[in-house]
Amino acid sequence: MNISNIRFDERGLVPAIVQDAQSKEVLTLAYMNEEALQKSLETGEAWFYSRSRQELWHKGETSGNTQRILEMRYDCDQDALLMLVEPQGPACHTGSYSCFSETIHGEAAGAYTDRFSIVNQLEQIIAK
Amino acid sequence: MNISNIRFDERGLVPAIVQDAQSKEVLTLAYMNEEALQKSLETGEAWFYSRSRQELWHKGETSGNTQRILEMRYDCDQDALLMLVEPQGPACHTGSYSCFSETIHGEAAGAYTDRFSIVNQLEQIIAK
Repeated sequence: MNISNIRFDERGLVPAIVQDAQSKEVLTLAYMNEEALQKSLETGEAWFYSRSRQELWHKGETSGNTQRILEMRYDCDQDALLMLVEPQGPACHTGSYSCFSETIHGEAAGAYTDRFSIVNQLEQIIAK
Repeated sequence: MNISNIRFDERGLVPAIVQDAQSKEVLTLAYMNEEALQKSLETGEAWFYSRSRQELWHKGETSGNTQRILEMRYDCDQDALLMLVEPQGPACHTGSYSCFSETIHGEAAGAYTDRFSIVNQLEQIIAK
């Protein structure tokens, strides 16, 4: 555990991508300040910094939909995080499994993953 | 194609997560301004805005490592994008398949995906 390498932006934040470790679906993009990152590493559960409420936020504290962190990675610029998690319930405040449920462009999900679509669907069902 | 819903931040940028549509590995977190988003949708290839160079950037223009966009989604707050892509070569400027290759915390990748590890490895190998 070494967070001194992480570069926080001018707001003191770093974006954190949350990915389901089993299904590999991307669930959320949220932000951490240094305290949220430390809490996440200490507790093994996802803590963020809410930009709208301007406060530290333990994911799932009120909803119960916590996220257990299985692995945390950072990128080549040290200014983005990727967390592989085991989610308890939906990631999104709307009740959806993932926050990324609206499509701007492209085929319906799965149409281009013909080779793997059955396996992907099975993984998602098991992971849910 | 409707980008008027997307909320750009005070810098005029929106973060875009790039995910391999086949292996489902997260490759990169980059940023788009409105022009980069329009170019991405028009051309079907990833365009970003480089914060360090402060210019529009067609991913792979010099390296050849372009990313064909199969699907683009946005999140519940309309302030983050997720692109499922077919990458031509490595995503990272270091030559790595993904920009997220450094681990802060957690088991070696795959240790917690026992049930699917062979399938995941196979998907990654095929996708590369």
